[in-house]
Amino acid sequence: MPVNETHNPELKSWVESANRSGADFPIQNLPFAVLRRAGSNEAFRVAAAIGDFALGLTELHDTGVITSKGLEACRGSTLNAFMALGKDAWSALRHDLSAVLAEGSESRTAIEPCLISLDEVEYALPATIGDYTDFYSSIHHATNIGKLFRPDNPLLPNYEWVPIAYHGRSSSIGISGQNIRRPVGQLKEAGKDQPTVAACKKLDYELEVGIFVGAGNPLGQPVPIDAAEDHIFGLCLLNDWSARDIQTWEYQPLGPFMAKNFATSISPWIVTLDALAPFRTRFTRDADRPQTLPYLSS
Amino acid sequence: MPVNETHNPELKSWVESANRSGADFPIQNLPFAVLRRAGSNEAFRVAAAIGDFALGLTELHDTGVITSKGLEACRGSTLNAFMALGKDAWSALRHDLSAVLAEGSESRTAIEPCLISLDEVEYALPATIGDYTDFYSSIHHATNIGKLFRPDNPLLPNYEWVPIAYHGRSSSIGISGQNIRRPVGQLKEAGKDQPTVAACKKLDYELEVGIFVGAGNPLGQPVPIDAAEDHIFGLCLLNDWSARDIQTWEYQPLGPFMAKNFATSISPWIVTLDALAPFRTRFTRDADRPQTLPYLSS
Repeated sequence: MPVNETHNPELKSWVESANRSGADFPIQNLPFAVLRRAGSNEAFRVAAAIGDFALGLTELHDTGVITSKGLEACRGSTLNAFMALGKDAWSALRHDLSAVLAEGSESRTAIEPCLISLDEVEYALPATIGDYTDFYSSIHHATNIGKLFRPDNPLLPNYEWVPIAYHGRSSSIGISGQNIRRPVGQLKEAGKDQPTVAACKKLDYELEVGIFVGAGNPLGQPVPIDAAEDHIFGLCLLNDWSARDIQTWEYQPLGPFMAKNFATSISPWIVTLDALAPFRTRFTRDADRPQTLPYLSS
Repeated sequence: MPVNETHNPELKSWVESANRSGADFPIQNLPFAVLRRAGSNEAFRVAAAIGDFALGLTELHDTGVITSKGLEACRGSTLNAFMALGKDAWSALRHDLSAVLAEGSESRTAIEPCLISLDEVEYALPATIGDYTDFYSSIHHATNIGKLFRPDNPLLPNYEWVPIAYHGRSSSIGISGQNIRRPVGQLKEAGKDQPTVAACKKLDYELEVGIFVGAGNPLGQPVPIDAAEDHIFGLCLLNDWSARDIQTWEYQPLGPFMAKNFATSISPWIVTLDALAPFRTRFTRDADRPQTLPYLSS
């Protein structure tokens, strides 16, 4: 994934708060979310973040400052249409947003009315999520969690060979900050004959990274590992809420179910893979461990 | 669930093929599907089955013979809007369809042009499926499958207490008759050091019953077991395709993943819970086995 002028660390925006040291949303980031003014009846709509502001993309489209297929696809209440367009459209809109928000842009006067203070907004899910897969992708996490459930055998032999994952429940994914109801379920204490039904006593969460797959593939046509980046739109943070005492009793042999499906929280902003290009580092594996099979390496 | 005049086994239809002994679609059944004329560019649309015909419900609505909120909700390309209306609307449409299709109905002339021969149709998924959960709900199946993976310990201690289930991949659910690509994945033979990547050699399927949940519930508000039937729209047949050799290697500790998510096939017709009322029988469990906990009994 190429680094280009949108990643230049010297680039500044006419939105002053974006240039502050340590700002979450400098002009090099430009993440996407779905939001509206808090407490209003406005339609939720797609926005990009810049400094302390959200730039409403429907409003931006209406200014006529940017005309592109990508921006047109951002006029709805979810990012799905834009995500489905694929990498070239994502990259083109990033370039256009960077250009019109950069210091010295002639579009400043037209665009300023499209900015909403982030203090004033509330968020919705950024996309309609059709399927959600939870990958068990850190060996440190897998070893630590494995010790909770199988102290004598934390890391199973398949772990270093095959991606271990399961499907989650899409309909219980919510946005960070929403309240979560503590789940009630079957708990079975060691040494007891029978389970009891009670509120979870061991509520936990795993801090994970969520990946939004944008452009899809026809069923049955695999995506080669070299083409994976054409499909990945961006990343968010994700809390994988887990009822450990319910999980201990229910999870064999088919994996987690009620212990996980009551809630998953994601951050409202999706940071694009493109924005992260300067920070990437190569995958490595210790030479004395099983090496990744060729179909999983690029 | 009450038995009423729509279930009367003596009831006959003016669609002669519905009265044939052993007909799949007598007037007592009236299942729903989404279809169009095969090979055409028509929009897929909701239909009910009667004898050897499908009754297009958009066309039926246009005749004005039935006016109801339920029939209006059937004018789209999926059953979701109708299913979301709940039990009273489902039952009302069943009564209306039964009345206008019954022998002696004055509406015959108006309705006959809305019939399409089942020989001429092709099907789409009857609903947009947001989440899909696979329950491990037969003790005979669980014991038999358990023997394949854990010959010494086929039925785990939780099985008779807590519903064991996992989430499937909604996006790979298709309609019966579609081709399925044999999956390629990691196979690990017993005694070998390493897995190999190859086409599945042990392709299998589990013959299951699919349940369409219609009316939903707000996140965090459980549905009491006594109210479950208010939410269940109907049933279909389901083939749960399974790559047993891939499953053996990948399924611990998080359950089935690639071994299952390549395909699930369902029958195109959804038979309503209402239509099945006369055939229901009470749940029983052998007295010497653990009895169902009260929150799961009604």
